[in-house]
Amino acid sequence: MIGHVPVNQLKRLLVGTPLPTAQSRHERLGKTTALAVFASDNLSSVAYATEEILRVLILAGAAALSLSMPIGFAIAIVIAVVISSYRQTIGEYPQGASDYLVAKDNLGTFAGLTAGGALLIDYTLTVAVSVSAGVAAITSAAPVLYPYRVGLCVFAIGMVAVGNLRGLRESGRLFALPSYLFIAGFVVMIVIGFGRYMLGGVGGASAAGPTTGAPLEGPLTAFLVLRAFASGAVALTGIEAVADGVPAFKPPEVRNARAVLVMLGTIMMTLFLGTTVLASLFSIVPRDEETVVSQLAWLVFGGGPLYYYVQAASMLILVLAANTAFADFPRLAFFMARDGYLPRQFGNRGDRLVFSNGVLILAVTAAILTWLFEGSTHALIPLYAVGVFTSFTLSQSSMVRRWFTTRPEGWWWRATLNGTGAATTGLVLIVVAAAKFLDGAWIVVVLLAGLIVVFLAIRSHYDEVAHQLSLEGYDGPPPMQHTVLVLVGDLHRGVVEALQYAKTLSPDAKAVYVELDPERTHRLEERWVKFGLGVPLIVLTSPYRSLLGPLLEYIDKLLTRDGNHVVTIVLPEFIPARWWQHLLHNQTALLVKGAMLFRKNVIVTDVPYHLRH
Amino acid sequence: MIGHVPVNQLKRLLVGTPLPTAQSRHERLGKTTALAVFASDNLSSVAYATEEILRVLILAGAAALSLSMPIGFAIAIVIAVVISSYRQTIGEYPQGASDYLVAKDNLGTFAGLTAGGALLIDYTLTVAVSVSAGVAAITSAAPVLYPYRVGLCVFAIGMVAVGNLRGLRESGRLFALPSYLFIAGFVVMIVIGFGRYMLGGVGGASAAGPTTGAPLEGPLTAFLVLRAFASGAVALTGIEAVADGVPAFKPPEVRNARAVLVMLGTIMMTLFLGTTVLASLFSIVPRDEETVVSQLAWLVFGGGPLYYYVQAASMLILVLAANTAFADFPRLAFFMARDGYLPRQFGNRGDRLVFSNGVLILAVTAAILTWLFEGSTHALIPLYAVGVFTSFTLSQSSMVRRWFTTRPEGWWWRATLNGTGAATTGLVLIVVAAAKFLDGAWIVVVLLAGLIVVFLAIRSHYDEVAHQLSLEGYDGPPPMQHTVLVLVGDLHRGVVEALQYAKTLSPDAKAVYVELDPERTHRLEERWVKFGLGVPLIVLTSPYRSLLGPLLEYIDKLLTRDGNHVVTIVLPEFIPARWWQHLLHNQTALLVKGAMLFRKNVIVTDVPYHLRH
Repeated sequence: MIGHVPVNQLKRLLVGTPLPTAQSRHERLGKTTALAVFASDNLSSVAYATEEILRVLILAGAAALSLSMPIGFAIAIVIAVVISSYRQTIGEYPQGASDYLVAKDNLGTFAGLTAGGALLIDYTLTVAVSVSAGVAAITSAAPVLYPYRVGLCVFAIGMVAVGNLRGLRESGRLFALPSYLFIAGFVVMIVIGFGRYMLGGVGGASAAGPTTGAPLEGPLTAFLVLRAFASGAVALTGIEAVADGVPAFKPPEVRNARAVLVMLGTIMMTLFLGTTVLASLFSIVPRDEETVVSQLAWLVFGGGPLYYYVQAASMLILVLAANTAFADFPRLAFFMARDGYLPRQFGNRGDRLVFSNGVLILAVTAAILTWLFEGSTHALIPLYAVGVFTSFTLSQSSMVRRWFTTRPEGWWWRATLNGTGAATTGLVLIVVAAAKFLDGAWIVVVLLAGLIVVFLAIRSHYDEVAHQLSLEGYDGPPPMQHTVLVLVGDLHRGVVEALQYAKTLSPDAKAVYVELDPERTHRLEERWVKFGLGVPLIVLTSPYRSLLGPLLEYIDKLLTRDGNHVVTIVLPEFIPARWWQHLLHNQTALLVKGAMLFRKNVIVTDVPYHLRH
Repeated sequence: MIGHVPVNQLKRLLVGTPLPTAQSRHERLGKTTALAVFASDNLSSVAYATEEILRVLILAGAAALSLSMPIGFAIAIVIAVVISSYRQTIGEYPQGASDYLVAKDNLGTFAGLTAGGALLIDYTLTVAVSVSAGVAAITSAAPVLYPYRVGLCVFAIGMVAVGNLRGLRESGRLFALPSYLFIAGFVVMIVIGFGRYMLGGVGGASAAGPTTGAPLEGPLTAFLVLRAFASGAVALTGIEAVADGVPAFKPPEVRNARAVLVMLGTIMMTLFLGTTVLASLFSIVPRDEETVVSQLAWLVFGGGPLYYYVQAASMLILVLAANTAFADFPRLAFFMARDGYLPRQFGNRGDRLVFSNGVLILAVTAAILTWLFEGSTHALIPLYAVGVFTSFTLSQSSMVRRWFTTRPEGWWWRATLNGTGAATTGLVLIVVAAAKFLDGAWIVVVLLAGLIVVFLAIRSHYDEVAHQLSLEGYDGPPPMQHTVLVLVGDLHRGVVEALQYAKTLSPDAKAVYVELDPERTHRLEERWVKFGLGVPLIVLTSPYRSLLGPLLEYIDKLLTRDGNHVVTIVLPEFIPARWWQHLLHNQTALLVKGAMLFRKNVIVTDVPYHLRH
């Protein structure tokens, strides 16, 4: 393979040396680390959820912005319901409660595939949205970078992907610090913010910048409020991560996971509500070039190191959130591939024990998405929540079904709790899909339907292949007749070696020559006597100068003679030492292989003769 | 091959059904037809040569245009000299006097390659220039088409290429009519034009349009006059065609060819001088949007059918001139490929007995050239004459050398005649190259030098290959040890059939399994007892999950045992029925083949198992 060595070296440099399979094990996480690991995806949405609510409300004028508070509380209630619901799921699926597995287990294949497809879409969007929002945190603090945001996003996705190919996903310590830095930063900002508000230290906010999206003030309709709620619902994304990851906890796994889930929910609600209420109190107006959090932090801290701290912590946790998706997507793809709904390649572990194909597909898809949406979090949001609420709803409904089936002690109130979760998330799903349909939610609906069809087609192909290849009731192949033909165009060292090779394959090997020029045939036959190694030479005439025509005709005649007859065509081929020299030789071998590829009972064997230079 | 059938059908539609080799023969041409066939390339330059002279002179102001007459006469004298020179070449090379062959024969390889390279460049430019000028004839009459000229050029090149792939190049009748229509049209225009001028019917020309190229009037220098001469020298291109084509004449070939050559020269001089003198008398000023011939015809005929007739005839003969290059280029490429200076593929005759690869390369190169130069004849002209005068000079010098060597009766005056030709064309070459160097002639000089290097590199590669493959002093290969290994990843019908195949290759065939998961190995071994056909199964462990590593290690161990040991790897591969299904299977076969491609003594054989759907 040309360039084999440099490509390999580059790969080693980026990805590192291979790890032995025996090193494959999961690091077990204590509660403090686990909270940091599983929180990043969910908590990071604090950096943009409030802004998305405001960006919708502003369409009805600045006065409508005050509605963000009740909307924030409604979302907090949904968070509480979902947390309670998932607490139960954890108990039932200590081996890891991926919504795909839970839905497939309880509601059947179709529900499972719907949840799986929704999650795959959602993880891709997590990467695109988180990286875009993280880059927005940087460009808010350093506006000169704003024009380069798409490049920065793609670069960040590439870095996270390379890190994951190296296998860093398992290291909890990496996560612990930024997550707690983020929590601390926001807590300080909220506390000081409220303090300042009470003291009357800060008034109406950055009225300097122009508002975005709506130069014309529209009416405040119920639909607009629903849209604002739907936009804010992205605050729930990533909440399912704890339930997915139960086996990663130190024992007792279930209890620890539940405790972490409740902690996560509490912190999330605090940060989200604090930010939303403060933004409302300070009358912050959303703008394209600066995030709401950036405006808020600037007002609270009046610039200074704490402002930059909050921006940096936001950026870090957002990148970590993207990183979480890089662990989740490949793992889900692995489960779905194992069940035959995705290509088997997603089941391969790479050099560093990571499911490399999943990482690569996710990175490429998310990068394309970011590029298409020009690195705008706001433009991506309408696509985001549909997937996550679809899988929430299916997962909660699965639990209801499960309680009705297994009927353990207290199953009735458990079913009620999960039923409330299912109803709530289902309602939110309808609101999100309807309110944001034309803004982009339709893309996800179409994509999800398409994915389900693809999953089923892949599974049906694998089933069919397994059936065709099955040895059940197979009595072994019938006895085989074998003819070896060496295709020659000339007689030289390469051909002589191929003839010798053919003789070891079969004592009855023959050489076949397609005659294009009778004079050359004559010369060939003369030399054949001396160098032909006793292999008989068959000359086929070709009135139309076609090499393949007469050859195919001859082979077809051979094959029709007996039942299970196989013809091996031995092709002497010399391999030039340099790539450009290939252009100087007729590509006969390629032509013959191409023509034989779909013929049954014909096998083509190249016998390479390596040229020195 | 997927899509094999539709591609073939499209080819049939465009190119036609294959012709048998036995139909390969040259149509013999009578003098009338021969004149038409060989005249088109040369005569067509009448359509633009005068204009190119005027376009240079105008740089020194309208008064300088009157110099076109003496320049035209100087060029006519060069034509007469070249014609006389080539008359002699025809006598010496009745088998066809390609400048490449003549120069190689008498002055050696380097001169031959220089002439050959120059001609290849020249033929490419003939296509680009002629088609551009032909399209200019159309857009002069129909100015609405002017913005689409590049597209029209590419379309015209495509049509001529397809026609040539069908094999129309040999049909003389196709040529006869447009050539004579063109001659007749120009003769009528010149006669009426002179008549009108004598009667004082037409005065100063289309002063309406703006002049082009030089908004500022420059001084009239000797260098400018030389540049004008160099531009007009394109009138000589294509004059060598008669000498190339001697074998195509009816006997007595030499006498007929000479007669046609003289006729051609006479007609050419008449038309070229007539046009140039008339343009001067009518004070025609060159313009971008309308050709000089178009302006002249409009003045002479005052519009009307005869004007359109001249434009149409110009367009037709220019397309035919391009067509001539489509016969000449592939034939020269064939000669040079036969001598090993170009890739052998140029020697293949296609379905219709044409050297298809030459036709395709020429069409693509000329189309790119036309596109780069935006379909402007004027922009292409500086590149044009360098090649043709290089090959003229080399060809005439060759003849001088030949007379000195063979010394037949009258060799002295023959050498003088060819010597005059060589000196004249050599002088013109220097003028052309120097005067137009910065305008584009340098491109041709660089390209020609590059081509000669490439020719020599190709030849040296072929020589080296022939040497390495030579059977001279070869005692046949040493006895061969042969091991057959079936690489298995599973056990299914496809594998069983591959095992059976391997057993026919060698009674000692073994199966090799690279273990990625010990549990699977165990299951495989259990089933092997029943379905393994008695082939021993070798299990290789792979701590790093690499398939290739352990396999390569095992093969290397085998190969170091004996001297001439060959290992055949049999790969059971199932071939899905549809292309997208390939994506659903691990590309192990491709990986193994890639890794083995540059290993000596390892041969990889796919045993396909065809899936039904």
